Amino acid sequence: MKFIHTGDWHLGKLVHGMYMTEDQREVLNQFVELVAEEQPDAVVIAGDLYDRSVPPTDAVELLDEVLFRINVDLNTPVVAIAGNHDSAERLSFGSSWYRHNHFYLTGKLSNNFQPVHINGVNFYLVPYAEPGVVRHLLDDSSIHSHQDAMKAVIGKIEENLNPNEANVFVGHAFVLGGDSCDSERTLSVGGSGCVTQDLFDPFAFTALGHLHSPDAIRHDRIRYSGSLLKYSFSEAKQRKSVSIVEMNENGTFNMRYRSLKPKQDMRELEGHLEQLLDPSFYEKENIHDYLKVTLLDDGAMIDPMGKLRQVFPNVLHLERKIESLDQKHKQNFTSIREEKKTELELFEQFYKEMTTSEFTGDKRDLMAGVINQVLKEEGQK
Amino acid sequence: MKFIHTGDWHLGKLVHGMYMTEDQREVLNQFVELVAEEQPDAVVIAGDLYDRSVPPTDAVELLDEVLFRINVDLNTPVVAIAGNHDSAERLSFGSSWYRHNHFYLTGKLSNNFQPVHINGVNFYLVPYAEPGVVRHLLDDSSIHSHQDAMKAVIGKIEENLNPNEANVFVGHAFVLGGDSCDSERTLSVGGSGCVTQDLFDPFAFTALGHLHSPDAIRHDRIRYSGSLLKYSFSEAKQRKSVSIVEMNENGTFNMRYRSLKPKQDMRELEGHLEQLLDPSFYEKENIHDYLKVTLLDDGAMIDPMGKLRQVFPNVLHLERKIESLDQKHKQNFTSIREEKKTELELFEQFYKEMTTSEFTGDKRDLMAGVINQVLKEEGQK
Repeated sequence: MKFIHTGDWHLGKLVHGMYMTEDQREVLNQFVELVAEEQPDAVVIAGDLYDRSVPPTDAVELLDEVLFRINVDLNTPVVAIAGNHDSAERLSFGSSWYRHNHFYLTGKLSNNFQPVHINGVNFYLVPYAEPGVVRHLLDDSSIHSHQDAMKAVIGKIEENLNPNEANVFVGHAFVLGGDSCDSERTLSVGGSGCVTQDLFDPFAFTALGHLHSPDAIRHDRIRYSGSLLKYSFSEAKQRKSVSIVEMNENGTFNMRYRSLKPKQDMRELEGHLEQLLDPSFYEKENIHDYLKVTLLDDGAMIDPMGKLRQVFPNVLHLERKIESLDQKHKQNFTSIREEKKTELELFEQFYKEMTTSEFTGDKRDLMAGVINQVLKEEGQK
Repeated sequence: MKFIHTGDWHLGKLVHGMYMTEDQREVLNQFVELVAEEQPDAVVIAGDLYDRSVPPTDAVELLDEVLFRINVDLNTPVVAIAGNHDSAERLSFGSSWYRHNHFYLTGKLSNNFQPVHINGVNFYLVPYAEPGVVRHLLDDSSIHSHQDAMKAVIGKIEENLNPNEANVFVGHAFVLGGDSCDSERTLSVGGSGCVTQDLFDPFAFTALGHLHSPDAIRHDRIRYSGSLLKYSFSEAKQRKSVSIVEMNENGTFNMRYRSLKPKQDMRELEGHLEQLLDPSFYEKENIHDYLKVTLLDDGAMIDPMGKLRQVFPNVLHLERKIESLDQKHKQNFTSIREEKKTELELFEQFYKEMTTSEFTGDKRDLMAGVINQVLKEEGQK
């Protein structure tokens, strides 16, 4: 039995103020072709189909179209869950109808812990859920952390699980490499508490979404598929792929990767302005890639972003790095400056990343008023 | 062939700051029972399933549940279109799957003007669309008004219509009683331009949504179903029902109404405070109804709303009417006052009707700033 594991599509995502929907459409077209070639028995999507609970209508139409092509046109069963970015309730709409066509979509965690059976494999679908939701659902007041919640849910699943069968857990969670939770890393994944690997021992394979790299965890039976695309410069060096899993009836399996190649890569470029703008350099480059540029030049510069964008139209972020005499003490002024940013500057940065509209003087005045009000109430001003 | 005509469910509607979802659930339960009794060949929902493009998740879950009970549990074909309150794109998600189960949902107007055939009746599904959308879709630059748009769409339908068959138009539009558009009434339906009756001559029956009274138009073959519930005090005296249409193959039909009875009615009450608070009066009343109360008392009063709500917990609106010596010149001070409201007061009223949260001093300050800015830019201040 063969299935494809993917996840973290984040349809409708804005990256540095740019909607990625057309890039997503391009890569999803490749994915549909890949499904047509591989002819799997199922496609597994491990959450975060959308990037937000109310995605833009373009993203809604794209998801509808892609799932229809896979599920109906290619007649491929689809197994999907909601991630923390999806609205469980909104995503669930219509799922009772989809089941008739072997499209198994679980938005909200429910008390039904029965698996979906596809060609000898049992898929246990566990959408993202806050600990409070699981506490309420299972009526178990001892559940406080994500670890507690996942343990309780898997406990329920185990009540009826036959360990000799091919059992696949489909989840959306922050599973750590080690056996305990590391608070420093927790902070980097936006407050979603972590879960230990050992919980997933009952399963032949655990198909995860949430972390965006397929290498986020190195475990032979617990895997992240990785996201559809690079969604931030911190992912610039990650490979993006989907996993092809071929599983036997006893749960043993082989796995391989297939890459997805967007038209425009997301990557970092470092150098002196003059060097980057020299045709002998950029002629070898895909100038349309999404770029974070770090300039090594000293001293004042006139509109370096404008100059760069004449050659590289999709520079999304520009930083400067001063090389001191002692190369070992390079200082990144941008990151130093970030620590000193005011609330207003931080909000402006957030606003620019989250919307496509300009942060005008009016908006700045309005926000400054709100921030002052809050600070005043907190007695900080 | 028997079908039920309903529409304007407006799930997720807020009335005077109160979510109507539980009232809607109650009446939709009655509706599902009615469908089970009548066993129609189809249920037709003529738009405005939701009250807004992004409805609350409760409303999403309610619609999902009700449609599933009708379409799957009761195995009844459903024909539905988007109204002006629905998001065409969001509502459309999944509709390709629903068709397999005879649930025909058309969110976005498309170039496919083919009807849905159910037991000898052809249903032409025309969701609400702005004239600009129709102009673009049909590539016809002469389309400017709703009248132009509807005429063009029906023209397309007529190209393949056999007038001897049972043809039913399902639409969401402001169709006037007369042959021309009356601008005064147009204003009262929130900018959606009107359409004349004669356009619908090709159809045996026109099942409309948009206006909330089943008596909004008196035409033997063009009908509004009326809304599911009374959604404003201007509808207090309207009857609410669904229409049962039994149609022959040549398009002739019989029609009758079946009422829906909410637990709590919406109605107006007029009198002196003392009289309304007298047990001999209110003992005969359903004190839980949603009420607009008009007090006839003269002079200052201390907290009349508080006193009324001790007896009638769901007073949503309170007005005072002064009876002058000359009874013929009654003046409604509330409506006079409304004409003098500032932009800020109007916004506050709108805010209270549209949300459940309080319009705090901070919000007032913020909004006052925005209004001042706009007025200044317009040179009015």
